[in-house]
Amino acid sequence: MVRIGIIGGSGYVGSELLRLLLLHPQAEVTMVTSRQSVGEYVFNVHPNLRSITQLKFVPQDMAEMQKNCDLIFTATPHGGSVNLVPKLLAAGLKVIDMSADYRLKNLDDYEMYYGWKHAHPEMLKDAIYGLPELHREEIKTAKIVACPGCMATSAILGLAPIVKAGLVDKDKIVVDLKVGSSGGGAKPTLGSHHPERFSGVRPYMVVGHRHIAEVEQELNALGNEPVKISFSPHAVNMVRGILATIHTFPKQKIENKDIWRALRGMYGNEPFVRLVKYQKGPYQLPDPKVTQGTNFCDVGFEIDEHANRLLLFSALDNMTKGAAGQAVQCMNIQLGIDETTGLKSTGFHPM
Amino acid sequence: MVRIGIIGGSGYVGSELLRLLLLHPQAEVTMVTSRQSVGEYVFNVHPNLRSITQLKFVPQDMAEMQKNCDLIFTATPHGGSVNLVPKLLAAGLKVIDMSADYRLKNLDDYEMYYGWKHAHPEMLKDAIYGLPELHREEIKTAKIVACPGCMATSAILGLAPIVKAGLVDKDKIVVDLKVGSSGGGAKPTLGSHHPERFSGVRPYMVVGHRHIAEVEQELNALGNEPVKISFSPHAVNMVRGILATIHTFPKQKIENKDIWRALRGMYGNEPFVRLVKYQKGPYQLPDPKVTQGTNFCDVGFEIDEHANRLLLFSALDNMTKGAAGQAVQCMNIQLGIDETTGLKSTGFHPM
Amino acid sequence: MVRIGIIGGSGYVGSELLRLLLLHPQAEVTMVTSRQSVGEYVFNVHPNLRSITQLKFVPQDMAEMQKNCDLIFTATPHGGSVNLVPKLLAAGLKVIDMSADYRLKNLDDYEMYYGWKHAHPEMLKDAIYGLPELHREEIKTAKIVACPGCMATSAILGLAPIVKAGLVDKDKIVVDLKVGSSGGGAKPTLGSHHPERFSGVRPYMVVGHRHIAEVEQELNALGNEPVKISFSPHAVNMVRGILATIHTFPKQKIENKDIWRALRGMYGNEPFVRLVKYQKGPYQLPDPKVTQGTNFCDVGFEIDEHANRLLLFSALDNMTKGAAGQAVQCMNIQLGIDETTGLKSTGFHPM
Amino acid sequence: MVRIGIIGGSGYVGSELLRLLLLHPQAEVTMVTSRQSVGEYVFNVHPNLRSITQLKFVPQDMAEMQKNCDLIFTATPHGGSVNLVPKLLAAGLKVIDMSADYRLKNLDDYEMYYGWKHAHPEMLKDAIYGLPELHREEIKTAKIVACPGCMATSAILGLAPIVKAGLVDKDKIVVDLKVGSSGGGAKPTLGSHHPERFSGVRPYMVVGHRHIAEVEQELNALGNEPVKISFSPHAVNMVRGILATIHTFPKQKIENKDIWRALRGMYGNEPFVRLVKYQKGPYQLPDPKVTQGTNFCDVGFEIDEHANRLLLFSALDNMTKGAAGQAVQCMNIQLGIDETTGLKSTGFHPM
Repeated sequence: MVRIGIIGGSGYVGSELLRLLLLHPQAEVTMVTSRQSVGEYVFNVHPNLRSITQLKFVPQDMAEMQKNCDLIFTATPHGGSVNLVPKLLAAGLKVIDMSADYRLKNLDDYEMYYGWKHAHPEMLKDAIYGLPELHREEIKTAKIVACPGCMATSAILGLAPIVKAGLVDKDKIVVDLKVGSSGGGAKPTLGSHHPERFSGVRPYMVVGHRHIAEVEQELNALGNEPVKISFSPHAVNMVRGILATIHTFPKQKIENKDIWRALRGMYGNEPFVRLVKYQKGPYQLPDPKVTQGTNFCDVGFEIDEHANRLLLFSALDNMTKGAAGQAVQCMNIQLGIDETTGLKSTGFHPM
Repeated sequence: MVRIGIIGGSGYVGSELLRLLLLHPQAEVTMVTSRQSVGEYVFNVHPNLRSITQLKFVPQDMAEMQKNCDLIFTATPHGGSVNLVPKLLAAGLKVIDMSADYRLKNLDDYEMYYGWKHAHPEMLKDAIYGLPELHREEIKTAKIVACPGCMATSAILGLAPIVKAGLVDKDKIVVDLKVGSSGGGAKPTLGSHHPERFSGVRPYMVVGHRHIAEVEQELNALGNEPVKISFSPHAVNMVRGILATIHTFPKQKIENKDIWRALRGMYGNEPFVRLVKYQKGPYQLPDPKVTQGTNFCDVGFEIDEHANRLLLFSALDNMTKGAAGQAVQCMNIQLGIDETTGLKSTGFHPM
Repeated sequence: MVRIGIIGGSGYVGSELLRLLLLHPQAEVTMVTSRQSVGEYVFNVHPNLRSITQLKFVPQDMAEMQKNCDLIFTATPHGGSVNLVPKLLAAGLKVIDMSADYRLKNLDDYEMYYGWKHAHPEMLKDAIYGLPELHREEIKTAKIVACPGCMATSAILGLAPIVKAGLVDKDKIVVDLKVGSSGGGAKPTLGSHHPERFSGVRPYMVVGHRHIAEVEQELNALGNEPVKISFSPHAVNMVRGILATIHTFPKQKIENKDIWRALRGMYGNEPFVRLVKYQKGPYQLPDPKVTQGTNFCDVGFEIDEHANRLLLFSALDNMTKGAAGQAVQCMNIQLGIDETTGLKSTGFHPM
Repeated sequence: MVRIGIIGGSGYVGSELLRLLLLHPQAEVTMVTSRQSVGEYVFNVHPNLRSITQLKFVPQDMAEMQKNCDLIFTATPHGGSVNLVPKLLAAGLKVIDMSADYRLKNLDDYEMYYGWKHAHPEMLKDAIYGLPELHREEIKTAKIVACPGCMATSAILGLAPIVKAGLVDKDKIVVDLKVGSSGGGAKPTLGSHHPERFSGVRPYMVVGHRHIAEVEQELNALGNEPVKISFSPHAVNMVRGILATIHTFPKQKIENKDIWRALRGMYGNEPFVRLVKYQKGPYQLPDPKVTQGTNFCDVGFEIDEHANRLLLFSALDNMTKGAAGQAVQCMNIQLGIDETTGLKSTGFHPM
């Protein structure tokens, strides 16, 4: 039984970690911290947890964590983990970091995409990008697991086999994302105000999005030449879910079997990647609706002969495979237990 | 390991039974029938089950069921179980019936509310109304478990403690329901067409709803004098969930502690009824959103001194506690295992 | 051409006033004030007004209003009009007040429902409750028009003919409301945060709601004995619209024709009240979806013989007939022009 | 006063034509046909028209149309206008055709994209593609106005200035569309069933969509070399609205002012195209939410220096500018009256 602490438990990522870990057969959540809700019952902030747990939010206290925990999930805002993670490691704790602070290998990227200089560049080599489909072996022994961003996960899982196989023009890769409102976090803003967000489609951060850095980092490690990602999210009228529609242009004529081969080659044994390309019904291609509440990433494709285009589709639940579920998957890998432990949700039809 | 057959597995209730039973540690789904989808993979109809099961829909064949199953869930349309259930019993199978066909004790009610004469009145005495909170002991040994209607479950669980305690005027009990679209089933209609259903509030079957019969039957068994239920649903813009707002008029002055006593007296040890009455945050009273994907029914109340009114609120997921989850709860009771087995979902925040 | 000033133009009521008045053939909006957006283009706050107007928000300046306006709409928060309205009147301006500050005749109600003592009780006699269906003649010459609350409008229009006719038990009138998120105003809160509000049904202010005071005031003026209103709103997943489901208990046996007579007697010539009771299709009874973007209030009913109940349904767009549209209707009455001027929207099918 | 007949008035395009034309000051709707609803009041099918019109659906009768109408809108399914339009012309009626049957100039395109051979190729030269921004002069005297498809309108208006200016790579133009459910028409299907459609993002017809033919036809007429359009719609959780996100790759380095010049050059005087590119608030770029209920198409852009990409955004209401509103705009042009007559809606904030 691994004893778990969650730092930053009052946000949505913290909420999803609690949902998964409170029922995890090999884990026990012993501490949950929050800055604004110290002393409150966790279920007062996350009403789904009523009758599930009597935990209260506690302040962040290193000695207590050292005493009560083996592993810490840091669900801190970006920039909030940089200094925290080294202290946790020094205290002998394992760390799975949900922020972006240890995802990037190139120091300049922090300045360019996040606007600050990394205070612990020496630690970056100890951090493994927590995408099991690409880094399973390294995760097993990682000191720091740096969990991927939700949109980055969908983009990378859609593109990795194709980029690895060198099938497409690396300068014209369009990732057009449709994203649910939970991705924006628990803090109310004008853009997330129900009357403003409901029933619209809003392009946002369509240029220069921070996730470009990690997407390019991971894809560049797979292929022979660096990619340029065109990355643009849109806020749509749902709470959970991301669909990445990826438009690419093959270097030469391709056929369905080429793509099947690339996808199956990488994902054939993956427990949480499903290949979705059907001929009947409304769900022939990936739709995040089908993945809600699960750790699955559904990947599909179509070839457009008219425009010489290869479309890839990648759908997931941004809270689960896009964040907390993937983090628990990494924890399972580290514990050496079945990777699907605590993550065996089937999803819902309908929801 | 109990071997399960599901009759009528292509509808939404069948879908939810599959979701719960495919992961149930003590159950194995061996057969799923469907009239329109014989030969198709179950996951072609329920896309959430891709990679979860390789079952195909089969025709309804008594010999096969007898050979492969111990227990049958009949997720048939109303009227479709009347003749089926006796045959299943005769074949030595246990039956949990999701239709209304064995819920009512009063034969006249079938004619009045459903418009047909019951073909097997002699079997009704063998059927137990599958609401564990009222009939747990009888369910243990029931030949037929007749699962309650979704709206009936919310109404009964909201009202039972109050009616039992004799606290309110029995002729003026208003149950105003707000219901998600999954309650209407999987068949597209004009009323369920997304452009028509989205973003509205539509009163429907506001008078003479069929669930009145079972609600009054169950409540009358608890109190001393028969109740008259004013029962009116409204279709709202969500997929899963029912909120029953119950307006009642106390016979004499009541206080919060009277209601707490009645509710705790009946539900204090119930694993799937939560009492919800808080002072802070957006979820002070039951909201079906908080129960989505779970087997919980959340019950709360307020006293309105101005109008001498007692409000009760009862929220649940119509697919789970309102149908398949409750049926699995009944199965667990029959199997003599922990009642929450396979039903330990925490729900989501947010969803 | 009447010259219009709008005080408080950056909120949602201000937005709706602008939508209607900028296209009104007899009105010219000359000034729009806002505290937080002075100097900004109105279309920066209300993006629908791009290319429609080049107005900018200005500070609230009495001399400027006196010079440029004939009539002021005060879309101020409750409590913000008490002192403002007398000053506007003293400056020779006509006033249509959107707040609650001049709606109530009983001084005690301000203390009980709003928590403050009215600073200008001497002005209350000059204020007319701006519901044309009840006060058309008085509105024509009113110094102050005090526009009704959105939920109050739906409740009163549903109940007025029945209460006037003395048909129902006056102590057991249940008004169960389903309300869109725009009713909560333009300021983001946790409860209006899209991930929290989406896809739920949330009871709120179910006891002691402020609108009870005005509903009872107006209904008491119609009948012989005072009514007690049981009034409880629910937040649902839509932006615009209110459905009031009104459950009443007739004193004696009633028939459809009794209700038709009462409704037609009061609303037969009303331009903005439609009687809705059909036998076919999904919209047999009022649904706020059908009134979105219009000044209509749709009223319908059903008789429940089983429970001796009369149900009334009243649906409207809380922004239009529930606020700004009704205010413009009052302005038209004051101007002596066709009451429907600038309000001739048909609504949408679908929306 | 032009006398209008609408063929196919029970669908959604017919509904929107009625909404606009019943209030149009220069038009009188004298006849509305429907195959399935003959004899029924129009308001029984379109509940928003209750109290607005007493028209009933009539059968399609050429003699009656000739007697009572000057101009016919044919809101027929694709393939339903081919033979109808010549008959209407022969009867001396003007025709605005809402189907695709007279949009395409290249006969082969009908076979390739629609699967049938055009029965009246000789008439195609008399048909003008009803996009005023490109064909205003020709529309004035057109025998047949062939109204554009909804998605085609958004794609063409987003791309026309850029293609005309020759700014981008013509083989790699990605049009990624997000579409509301009304675009699928009034007939319920499994894909449009509320429980299936709600809260998802579903790619559909992502390859080989029919609108590609008309988009390429219109764009090819503007530039020097033929374009290849990559065109892929997605069904999202809203009823009205299309956002076309258009990803293009400039041939050489471009700056904001180049794009502004191209857009202003084409749309500077257009009454229904708004250029949207702001620095503040949630609506900095086009969002179909802002255009709901209006005839506006909002066009915006961003330059992505990282990936050498030019993004264009084009948002409209598929029922209005994407169909009926645009048709009325064409009618106004033909009548020689102010093009905005009957189309002066401001839209809503919020809706």
